[in-house]
Amino acid sequence: MSEPARKSIFIGTFIFCRDLNTLERLKDTAICVNDQGVIVAIERKFKQEAQFTQILLSRLGWIDSEVVICRSNEGQFFFPGFKDLMKGGIVDTHIHAPQFSNSGIFGQTTLLDWLNKYTFPTEGSMEDLSKARQVYTRCIQRTLSHGTTTAVYFATRHVDASNLLADICLAKGQRAFIGRCCMDSKLNPHIGAIDPENKLITPIITPRFALSCTSHAMHALGLLQKETGIPVQTHISETKAEVNLVRELFPQCANYADVYDQHGLLGEKTILAHAVHLTEEECDLIKLRRSKISHCPISNSALASGQARVKWLLEKGIDVGLGSDVSGGYSTSILETARHALLVSRHVAMHANDEAKLSAEEVLYLATRGGAKLVGMEKELGAFEMGMIWDAQLIGLSACRDETSLTEDDGLVDIFSWEEDGNQIYKWLFNGDDRNSLAVWVQGNLVHQKRNFRGNLTSIGSKLQVHM
Amino acid sequence: MSEPARKSIFIGTFIFCRDLNTLERLKDTAICVNDQGVIVAIERKFKQEAQFTQILLSRLGWIDSEVVICRSNEGQFFFPGFKDLMKGGIVDTHIHAPQFSNSGIFGQTTLLDWLNKYTFPTEGSMEDLSKARQVYTRCIQRTLSHGTTTAVYFATRHVDASNLLADICLAKGQRAFIGRCCMDSKLNPHIGAIDPENKLITPIITPRFALSCTSHAMHALGLLQKETGIPVQTHISETKAEVNLVRELFPQCANYADVYDQHGLLGEKTILAHAVHLTEEECDLIKLRRSKISHCPISNSALASGQARVKWLLEKGIDVGLGSDVSGGYSTSILETARHALLVSRHVAMHANDEAKLSAEEVLYLATRGGAKLVGMEKELGAFEMGMIWDAQLIGLSACRDETSLTEDDGLVDIFSWEEDGNQIYKWLFNGDDRNSLAVWVQGNLVHQKRNFRGNLTSIGSKLQVHM
Repeated sequence: MSEPARKSIFIGTFIFCRDLNTLERLKDTAICVNDQGVIVAIERKFKQEAQFTQILLSRLGWIDSEVVICRSNEGQFFFPGFKDLMKGGIVDTHIHAPQFSNSGIFGQTTLLDWLNKYTFPTEGSMEDLSKARQVYTRCIQRTLSHGTTTAVYFATRHVDASNLLADICLAKGQRAFIGRCCMDSKLNPHIGAIDPENKLITPIITPRFALSCTSHAMHALGLLQKETGIPVQTHISETKAEVNLVRELFPQCANYADVYDQHGLLGEKTILAHAVHLTEEECDLIKLRRSKISHCPISNSALASGQARVKWLLEKGIDVGLGSDVSGGYSTSILETARHALLVSRHVAMHANDEAKLSAEEVLYLATRGGAKLVGMEKELGAFEMGMIWDAQLIGLSACRDETSLTEDDGLVDIFSWEEDGNQIYKWLFNGDDRNSLAVWVQGNLVHQKRNFRGNLTSIGSKLQVHM
Repeated sequence: MSEPARKSIFIGTFIFCRDLNTLERLKDTAICVNDQGVIVAIERKFKQEAQFTQILLSRLGWIDSEVVICRSNEGQFFFPGFKDLMKGGIVDTHIHAPQFSNSGIFGQTTLLDWLNKYTFPTEGSMEDLSKARQVYTRCIQRTLSHGTTTAVYFATRHVDASNLLADICLAKGQRAFIGRCCMDSKLNPHIGAIDPENKLITPIITPRFALSCTSHAMHALGLLQKETGIPVQTHISETKAEVNLVRELFPQCANYADVYDQHGLLGEKTILAHAVHLTEEECDLIKLRRSKISHCPISNSALASGQARVKWLLEKGIDVGLGSDVSGGYSTSILETARHALLVSRHVAMHANDEAKLSAEEVLYLATRGGAKLVGMEKELGAFEMGMIWDAQLIGLSACRDETSLTEDDGLVDIFSWEEDGNQIYKWLFNGDDRNSLAVWVQGNLVHQKRNFRGNLTSIGSKLQVHM
């Protein structure tokens, strides 16, 4: 269960993507978050002495005893955190929760035989709600532990199991877009009803992909989207075999993207997963419709689907985020997905030119602000600015000291005393894992914490700061 | 420090690569290892009751109080463990210890500018022995924690720092081949002397690569190899730019492989790292000379060097092992390197055909038995057969139970109650990390253990088995 938001002051170092190419680092900063998870003050050059905290509290009209202070210690920082209009938190823009138990199981298959051999049987078994509960609970725990504050989930065709997924997300405090998969033209009222303001849980229209939907069903879903304004997610152009089959099945459409367009499913609230084999023409259409793309590099490599040309998509002006695509991808970590986005872009570069390479800054941008754009929440949710919402994680990296033994608790990032500060974020990108996510908040709620995280917290007495 | 070998009985499940395509699983087996780390008995269908242990002990003539029993519990197994002539343990066949502190730091560079920008300055700083001690200590701790029982290290040109690396390996109990890099034609006597039988530490002749050695130096090293029989390591054909420069610098040689051949450096004890852009002709020469190849997939992707065609090399009959190539590669984990070898082979397949794909079984083979072949120790070191040596790790995967919270201690592999046993090894390959390596042994010495590992151990009283 998540821990409800309290009035909080976060103090220390904040690192975030200022834009696609630049990392920003704020040191000695205090950010005040109210009990609705909303940022109500940001103080730069903040000194950590008690009297400065008192001045801040009295300005806010907060009472000492209500407030929790959370510090980033040496070697720790809050991420993402930024000062303009984009969303905080890491966003997984494409994940199949019912496939979670298959992570790492794909053998030598490619997409279409993988679906038949591994995926459809596992998804079918979600009809058993006790099984669904185990898989969904662990999937949500696991993604939260990796700092995924927002996830865009494909569920299955089962109504009860899809409702259960939404219930568990809400209970665990993860922000989620949840779509019953291959659904017919009826909405799933439960997912829209459990969180009436869609603060955390939002339904999403989810035709699996053109090969598993009739034209009739897609038309109905397109109309539904038009009536309700609800977002849409589907797959596009993941493998060449699939592209060829789509061409055969929809001879009246100019291309794969046009199939969705002709059915009213290609709008600015549409997330298209994969987009590996898009033509120039399709790319122009997607740009025109302002649809979004979820890049799933681990999945595309594991299933040998192909190498998406992300830099090309970005240069076209298309919004791109990252998706784990579990279990086509084997990892639920968006940090690991970002790492693979960088590596896959280098494989693209091997066959094209160096311009195709994504930088560390760019893949971290895709993992955070890119994902936020995909779910259309950059203005609503915001970031570390007044009135925006606290979706964040505290990252901790361990210092190496001579002759001290390493422990498994500290994770795999080794920081030496002589290193530049700037290296830390790269080291985290390449060797970081869930052990470095010391705590994770969604909407100010503490939704995941490591065993020793409580040491970062203090509460305030009338004059002294004491440990809780 | 490593813990010296005691007489031990390992009981439980053992998984290993029988051949390139087949995983073997031994359940209910007991393997007895003496205090020299040598396997002296293997019992199949072993029942864990005390009287069976007593029968085994009396057959061996072992006294109860001398013996430690180590069990693999549910969800745990020993890896690798196999019954023919190959080596146990995971082998990193190419790692630059002095670059360890740069893991994850490579920006947008490719090989030749990466060397100048990041690598040479860092390697130069190893002249400072206190710095070298910190970096080497952590590098060895870290690789052991990943289950790397044997490492083939490039050191730097500094004699004292290279000696220090050998000293720390010996003290920590890691089997290592250590070469002073870019060395002239003199051997480094210390590395050969600290472990006179080369039980753990062996010197290796280490010309960096053709671009950083004069023809004179390479000839001298070739003669030295001929005189001493010491193994050789170098780089070959990592990037196209390098291949072109080698062609310009050595116009008298037919190709890159021929450069080493003409200098007496291409023999059956030679390990060639990378081998990305080899021609058919070079491949034939390497096969003829029985030289070995260390495949470094993470490095090759990170530096955009290219995609080595490993399946093609294997089909040619060339021995291939895996190298982390830290810090061209960002990870010290050979498990992660194996995972990337599989992914990179799929990128090769995207441009060739499905035959280029490496399977999970194949990459695990490369990580263990492939690596053993590269260091020429498959006969000497052996495996889980009578008279062979115990180089192994105990792997533990965590079971998911409904509604129990996950903890960071258990690692990232989620095993559900309804899963087939056979899935576990794939799940470990794709989501496993150091947290799953509960304990690591080299030559029977316990060289790394997780906090809770002691729970797997019992000692034997006269009738009762009691916890230590």
